[in-house]
Amino acid sequence: MTFDETVRLIQPVDAQIAARVQARLDGLTKPLGSLGRLEETVVRYAAITGEAKPNVPRGVVFTLAADHGVAMEGVSAYPSEVTPQMVLNFLRGGAGVNVLARHTGVEVRVVDIGVAYDFGIIPGLIRKKVMRGTRNLRREPAMSRAEATQAVRIGIDLAAEAAREGIGLIGTGEMGIGNTTPSAAIAAVMTGRAVADVTGRGTGIDDAGHIHKIQVIQEALDRHRPDRADALDVVAKVGGLEIAGLAGVILGAAAARVPIVLDGFIAGAAALIAAGIQPLCCDYLIASHRSVERGHQVILDHLGLKALLDLDLRLGEGTGACLGMGLVQASIKILTEMATFGEAGVSGREA
Amino acid sequence: MTFDETVRLIQPVDAQIAARVQARLDGLTKPLGSLGRLEETVVRYAAITGEAKPNVPRGVVFTLAADHGVAMEGVSAYPSEVTPQMVLNFLRGGAGVNVLARHTGVEVRVVDIGVAYDFGIIPGLIRKKVMRGTRNLRREPAMSRAEATQAVRIGIDLAAEAAREGIGLIGTGEMGIGNTTPSAAIAAVMTGRAVADVTGRGTGIDDAGHIHKIQVIQEALDRHRPDRADALDVVAKVGGLEIAGLAGVILGAAAARVPIVLDGFIAGAAALIAAGIQPLCCDYLIASHRSVERGHQVILDHLGLKALLDLDLRLGEGTGACLGMGLVQASIKILTEMATFGEAGVSGREA
Repeated sequence: MTFDETVRLIQPVDAQIAARVQARLDGLTKPLGSLGRLEETVVRYAAITGEAKPNVPRGVVFTLAADHGVAMEGVSAYPSEVTPQMVLNFLRGGAGVNVLARHTGVEVRVVDIGVAYDFGIIPGLIRKKVMRGTRNLRREPAMSRAEATQAVRIGIDLAAEAAREGIGLIGTGEMGIGNTTPSAAIAAVMTGRAVADVTGRGTGIDDAGHIHKIQVIQEALDRHRPDRADALDVVAKVGGLEIAGLAGVILGAAAARVPIVLDGFIAGAAALIAAGIQPLCCDYLIASHRSVERGHQVILDHLGLKALLDLDLRLGEGTGACLGMGLVQASIKILTEMATFGEAGVSGREA
Repeated sequence: MTFDETVRLIQPVDAQIAARVQARLDGLTKPLGSLGRLEETVVRYAAITGEAKPNVPRGVVFTLAADHGVAMEGVSAYPSEVTPQMVLNFLRGGAGVNVLARHTGVEVRVVDIGVAYDFGIIPGLIRKKVMRGTRNLRREPAMSRAEATQAVRIGIDLAAEAAREGIGLIGTGEMGIGNTTPSAAIAAVMTGRAVADVTGRGTGIDDAGHIHKIQVIQEALDRHRPDRADALDVVAKVGGLEIAGLAGVILGAAAARVPIVLDGFIAGAAALIAAGIQPLCCDYLIASHRSVERGHQVILDHLGLKALLDLDLRLGEGTGACLGMGLVQASIKILTEMATFGEAGVSGREA
């Protein structure tokens, strides 16, 4: 499917199904609305998929890995070699996302969309490398428009393929040393907020490093002047390959009516790009958690999302998404496994 | 074991084990502290149990059911007959707590500690009825001191028996039409706050009902003058059988070094009673979620607890506790299943 066809396929979610599901929830043996955000979540899930009585879906979290030229500017507490090292850790099952994916029964798909390292052929690794990391966005555009578009299309294809296999819930994950820098740059452009408002400490830089990171982002924005009305321009000039790829995953999943569970800050930046391309995407998103990273709340507000969890997470990889997918599963079971007042012979409210 | 022996058995948690577990977490392949509240949770779990490399424990949520004489004052949106009806729903597996317990793989144990209905012998129901509901606390003490003590001892025995079976994680749940009224009364007494600050709408009363509920509680406190320094006096005069029972569950679990995952507002009131009897209890508690019910945050602050989840839940039964137990399981897997930097060959931070 082409990029344009995918974007056209994305339709408004189904408000009628949402109302039917809420009516069923209101007939279950509990005070009205007393399961709060779980009820909201399954209503949203049903509106996206169009299923009034959904089964618990098979879930996949896509962990897209890529490197960042801007890492050479000292914006991260860790060296770039950690990106491929962590990819190998993912493939061996030893990373945080692997543990939490097993916990919630979802599959991790690890994608090399732009790591600056030649893995060769390794079982389990999905090889989709566009280039060996982005260019240094402080000095030049991170990607050409063609490279960024290619990364988005890879994401679209990953989601479309998963949907064809019957995957009904997609989580977003990422690994890329330096990637809170392009994410903050995207957040500043797409939300119109000052760079300092959306730039945090990533994996843990100190005060001086934080000030430097803000300066690097501001220089990049001043130099490249990305066009907020053209999200592909933004992700090409100041983004990253995994961010563009995740924007594609979101578009492809929304086109297939598969709910997307967002992880944290970097996933939020990808969602800003996807929503810039097709604003209807927002209704297909479920925000798993609110990251510690400054700027994540700004992104969630801009997308009209409220996070399910607030656990002070800032690991990325898709760890928060896995926990959020567990809550989506739980919310579906509430809808389909709880007894109604009538079935259980329980009295309703006093007149 | 006697009441006094149980209270004496409760010891401070193990700070050395906590430090060892934090050191291991700091060596896992993630930025320091980046799994936030999950890290805090497993550190707490380990400090309670004394296990530095814990297995995922078998979990039980105790759902204690009882009726409340004060329900005749119109403090609830539902009639008292719902208490036994919901007990039957629990036993058939159709209630919210059943669904969420299955989701997280924990067992629900349903206990009649004071329902105003004769169930006879029903498979699955643990029969521990102290009396057929409390007396109307607006007019007279809800229980005698002997009745309240009996309910606490039942809870102690339930927890001790579970610990002997190898249960390593206990959740608190309850069912009792009217039970946010005694819970608010307990919260007002034990925290010293005004009744209006800790009294919410329970299952959903309107403005007039809310004002009336506050008046009923204030009248009860003025009439009975429960002694804050004597938690048994408080729970006897203005509490409930399931609340006293859950206070016992907490004491019994703490004595056996089994972590307790609290549900919402009513569980919080029970924890105030347990902490009034033995303040060391607080370190054995994990707060699953912050309820919508006004006053729950006041209770959590008083106990020095921070809730893991904030999902606008107000159902009770142990529903939030089940979700919290799922997060405890996840936190244990993080500790025991993630690779260290050394094992995974991943570079550490830049010098």
